[in-house]
Amino acid sequence: MERIKLAPVKGVLPPVVTPFKNEELDLEAFENNLKALNRTGLSGYVVLGSTGESVYLDEREKEMVLASAREAAAPGKQLVMGTGQESTRAAIHLTRLAAKHGADFVLVVTPAYFKGQMTADALMTHFTRVADDSPIPVLLYNVPQFTALNLLPEVVAQLAQHPNIQGIKDSTGDIAQLTEIIRMVPREFAVLVGSDTVFYPALCVGATGGVLATPNVIPDLLVELFNLFLEGKHLEALNLQRRINPLASLVLKDYGVGGIKLAMDMMGFQGGGVRSPLTIPHGARGRFSAELAKLRPESQPQREGTPLFKEPGNE
Amino acid sequence: MERIKLAPVKGVLPPVVTPFKNEELDLEAFENNLKALNRTGLSGYVVLGSTGESVYLDEREKEMVLASAREAAAPGKQLVMGTGQESTRAAIHLTRLAAKHGADFVLVVTPAYFKGQMTADALMTHFTRVADDSPIPVLLYNVPQFTALNLLPEVVAQLAQHPNIQGIKDSTGDIAQLTEIIRMVPREFAVLVGSDTVFYPALCVGATGGVLATPNVIPDLLVELFNLFLEGKHLEALNLQRRINPLASLVLKDYGVGGIKLAMDMMGFQGGGVRSPLTIPHGARGRFSAELAKLRPESQPQREGTPLFKEPGNE
Amino acid sequence: MERIKLAPVKGVLPPVVTPFKNEELDLEAFENNLKALNRTGLSGYVVLGSTGESVYLDEREKEMVLASAREAAAPGKQLVMGTGQESTRAAIHLTRLAAKHGADFVLVVTPAYFKGQMTADALMTHFTRVADDSPIPVLLYNVPQFTALNLLPEVVAQLAQHPNIQGIKDSTGDIAQLTEIIRMVPREFAVLVGSDTVFYPALCVGATGGVLATPNVIPDLLVELFNLFLEGKHLEALNLQRRINPLASLVLKDYGVGGIKLAMDMMGFQGGGVRSPLTIPHGARGRFSAELAKLRPESQPQREGTPLFKEPGNE
Amino acid sequence: MERIKLAPVKGVLPPVVTPFKNEELDLEAFENNLKALNRTGLSGYVVLGSTGESVYLDEREKEMVLASAREAAAPGKQLVMGTGQESTRAAIHLTRLAAKHGADFVLVVTPAYFKGQMTADALMTHFTRVADDSPIPVLLYNVPQFTALNLLPEVVAQLAQHPNIQGIKDSTGDIAQLTEIIRMVPREFAVLVGSDTVFYPALCVGATGGVLATPNVIPDLLVELFNLFLEGKHLEALNLQRRINPLASLVLKDYGVGGIKLAMDMMGFQGGGVRSPLTIPHGARGRFSAELAKLRPESQPQREGTPLFKEPGNE
Repeated sequence: MERIKLAPVKGVLPPVVTPFKNEELDLEAFENNLKALNRTGLSGYVVLGSTGESVYLDEREKEMVLASAREAAAPGKQLVMGTGQESTRAAIHLTRLAAKHGADFVLVVTPAYFKGQMTADALMTHFTRVADDSPIPVLLYNVPQFTALNLLPEVVAQLAQHPNIQGIKDSTGDIAQLTEIIRMVPREFAVLVGSDTVFYPALCVGATGGVLATPNVIPDLLVELFNLFLEGKHLEALNLQRRINPLASLVLKDYGVGGIKLAMDMMGFQGGGVRSPLTIPHGARGRFSAELAKLRPESQPQREGTPLFKEPGNE
Repeated sequence: MERIKLAPVKGVLPPVVTPFKNEELDLEAFENNLKALNRTGLSGYVVLGSTGESVYLDEREKEMVLASAREAAAPGKQLVMGTGQESTRAAIHLTRLAAKHGADFVLVVTPAYFKGQMTADALMTHFTRVADDSPIPVLLYNVPQFTALNLLPEVVAQLAQHPNIQGIKDSTGDIAQLTEIIRMVPREFAVLVGSDTVFYPALCVGATGGVLATPNVIPDLLVELFNLFLEGKHLEALNLQRRINPLASLVLKDYGVGGIKLAMDMMGFQGGGVRSPLTIPHGARGRFSAELAKLRPESQPQREGTPLFKEPGNE
Repeated sequence: MERIKLAPVKGVLPPVVTPFKNEELDLEAFENNLKALNRTGLSGYVVLGSTGESVYLDEREKEMVLASAREAAAPGKQLVMGTGQESTRAAIHLTRLAAKHGADFVLVVTPAYFKGQMTADALMTHFTRVADDSPIPVLLYNVPQFTALNLLPEVVAQLAQHPNIQGIKDSTGDIAQLTEIIRMVPREFAVLVGSDTVFYPALCVGATGGVLATPNVIPDLLVELFNLFLEGKHLEALNLQRRINPLASLVLKDYGVGGIKLAMDMMGFQGGGVRSPLTIPHGARGRFSAELAKLRPESQPQREGTPLFKEPGNE
Repeated sequence: MERIKLAPVKGVLPPVVTPFKNEELDLEAFENNLKALNRTGLSGYVVLGSTGESVYLDEREKEMVLASAREAAAPGKQLVMGTGQESTRAAIHLTRLAAKHGADFVLVVTPAYFKGQMTADALMTHFTRVADDSPIPVLLYNVPQFTALNLLPEVVAQLAQHPNIQGIKDSTGDIAQLTEIIRMVPREFAVLVGSDTVFYPALCVGATGGVLATPNVIPDLLVELFNLFLEGKHLEALNLQRRINPLASLVLKDYGVGGIKLAMDMMGFQGGGVRSPLTIPHGARGRFSAELAKLRPESQPQREGTPLFKEPGNE
């Protein structure tokens, strides 16, 4: 099979949420969100990722979301679709569907139910078969906070030799592991960090971008952070990272997808409802309100700079 | 809704395997296994459990397996069907399907993908909604080795108040937790242990039975263990437990479902193939052969009895 | 060296507390406790164990406690002294001191600071050197809740071949592991469980006794449990275990050594103070009071028996 | 008490090893190492840290090492001494000793044996008492890989308000946690990273330096990395970090203190022997040799730069 060679994924891509109304898909809200995000500097979108509550959707719904995303995403935005499944054949099946619906890349999470059996060999075989069959390039997806399984740098490095495996989203938040992966893979392999709170240090060690949850809520700030880094403005990038972290922790550690959707609603996006057993944390509205207020341009950050940085404005 | 009141689940029920041939369902092998097991003293079967590779089956296949199980299971055997899903609505949907196909009980695993959000409240709501809706009684299923989430005794005790939640399979292997659950639930609530290596001590602390993997391979020995316990023959039950443990560890810790299927084939059942990314550990045939040989009636156990037990034959 | 062969340790031995008054050793209280315990059916005492706050004592203080224990312990009680240290030479040094002061056994915890380096080989060497040198028999001590390191059954089985290593205290609470250890060691090797909440099931699988914290507070009940087991009264032993568990959880999971000392004071023993950073949980007095009240002979248990047990009085 | 105000600790400080000869202190080797290191750009030394096998030394030996360090360290080098102990009083005692022997700072590890009881309150009290009493400034020490306990940013932030607690060594390797700590503490509070493999990203997020093991072996390279960062040469700093990581992993993940000592010997320092149960991994000499060779100036790095960095020489 001839391999598609896309520009490597870089920059900021949110795993977009899937809004529900009374537990039913609300595709209008979904498309409205994408249209609003089209006007930002985001590089693209991840559809049907963890944050998209992919595990709560059946196949028919997934197809509807895929079609809807392709329709709503602006031409310049890269469209990544989550197609990981526990069995290799199901992952292949969904990957084909994503390609049919116009995805640019698929994002394939590690199968993880039978953790004890998911050896390096088993994972190698799984991802290789999916990549062999996939009409479009594959990105690996490592997210131990959900799978309780870690995809080791050695395995990533081997898989990175496959011509159709062109990147990874690593959500461990482990910068040493990210550094090790980047050290071992080819230069054109995209390494995307999946933890908002370490976006800046991940860029420092060579990540090409981030698949991050908070850009669902505050897209411009994450794009700004990325651009500051590109311009070599390390201190400003760090200061922005610090400002973003309290909100990111609130979303990621305390409230999850329900928290993202609540914050989206508060910022004028259409987060909508979740599917049970998830809930919207209405009681936390005050905490979100306080953190969002601190991110307005006029608010003052808690602590600027570092004792070491030798950049203008540091003294 | 009027609630069905079945005899509480007790005794030995294997979570039966789902045989595959070239990754396709092999229902003939599936039914042959059940027919062979019908002639044993097993209390029933769990279909579409973890060991049944439920996570690798699509809905159409699940229905075929359900129908096939109802067809092949002898009338006296209790039929339990695994119907847990990540979303509440999907779990309800599958539960109705199981009832339609003649299941006696459904076994509902904890949703676990968004671990951080699966609070006691979220789990209470999930199981309560499923039980409210289910036409047949619900058994809870706690299996942290696969879900990386523990269903705490306090939550079990609250759920046990629901008239349609009539038992639990706890696969933690944690006897203190099992004791605590049994202490807190009503007497008629079935508590089934899911770890072969602690079947006897689980019975000692009041479990009513076991949903165990090794009876797929050596059904008579596990039934014998249960009967020895019922007869108050503690020392003999313990000795049998000890004899079984090396095989159980091989299956559960080292080789998983692939190991069970291999051992089944070696014992004249029809384990068949697995679905990728699982594999059959052909290289371990020698180890299985050695352990199975030790379980033949004529072989001598490593160590009998204990220094304390005051039963005949102990001195 | 000729090896001392003592009767294997069995029955109930509390790891006795070390009372402090204004952070100074209170040996009078210490001896009073032992004298009170001398009148019970306890098999002996573990001095300078975890519960004895051994990690907070310097060498001079340890010698004083050893001498005091030898003085106060009744002749029939087995005296076990904790002498584990991070370095092999320090463990040997303290072991000699224990022998000099009249200990019957030493209890040697796994060294654990450099967890990554504490391989099976390293642990084998450590324990073998201590046992080679020790004038008195050695008991191994595995307590992952404090050391974050597990001593595996395979390693225990190898060490059990050493003529001077005559038992183990396993505090994992993992009954499968305990069963595996007992299956693999010689019959005369003492296997003591270190988790109060699984004392009865541990005896069921062949443990010879328990080194348990609650007998510091309610010695007679734990001795009674042991005797019920010896008499084959399984159901009564189980019921007693269940009655004891809430207090045991309070002590072990919630409040630790400070909780034991508080409860001792409430029961007429002399728990005394702890050393900082530990504290006495005075605020929990009410909870302890409630649980202790439930253990009085006249109080009624929450749930008696099991649906399966075929013993008189079960129906 | 009037508080000493030293310049905050920054730059690179190795936790120096304690060489042994036949398990006895080899102070001559110890001093020779310090004298060799005096000629480098290291900021100072940590004596009696984890790497110094502090847990294997008795009090008399610790005093000898302290005196020896004070004698051998060049005047300009900051001298930090590890004085953490399980009990508050023992930590205070050793802290006074360190001050008496001329330490500039003490480094106090979290007490951790009774993990369940080491609540935020207990740790606050412990460190506050030590800091209240200490004649010299205190640095906190968080090292979960040895203690299995994490000192949370919230607790660090509170302790950082104490005038005599002037910094922390955080060895979690968790850059998000490090960022959070730095965000919450006063600007003059020293934040030192304790994981060699994330030294560069730690500096990026505002760490003031590193207490790192590999400078025992290759001091100049770590000093160079620090200086490159100070000069704003991010890409060069990153490339150096990547070159160092394989050796750092070998030392920290695979072989520990024994590995450091072996590598020191190979580089002309005097690592010497370890105390049992540690061992020198002589069998790994080949692996160390290969990694050390790659760090020679003439060797070529595996991969330079990143796709994003906009620095000269990147294109």
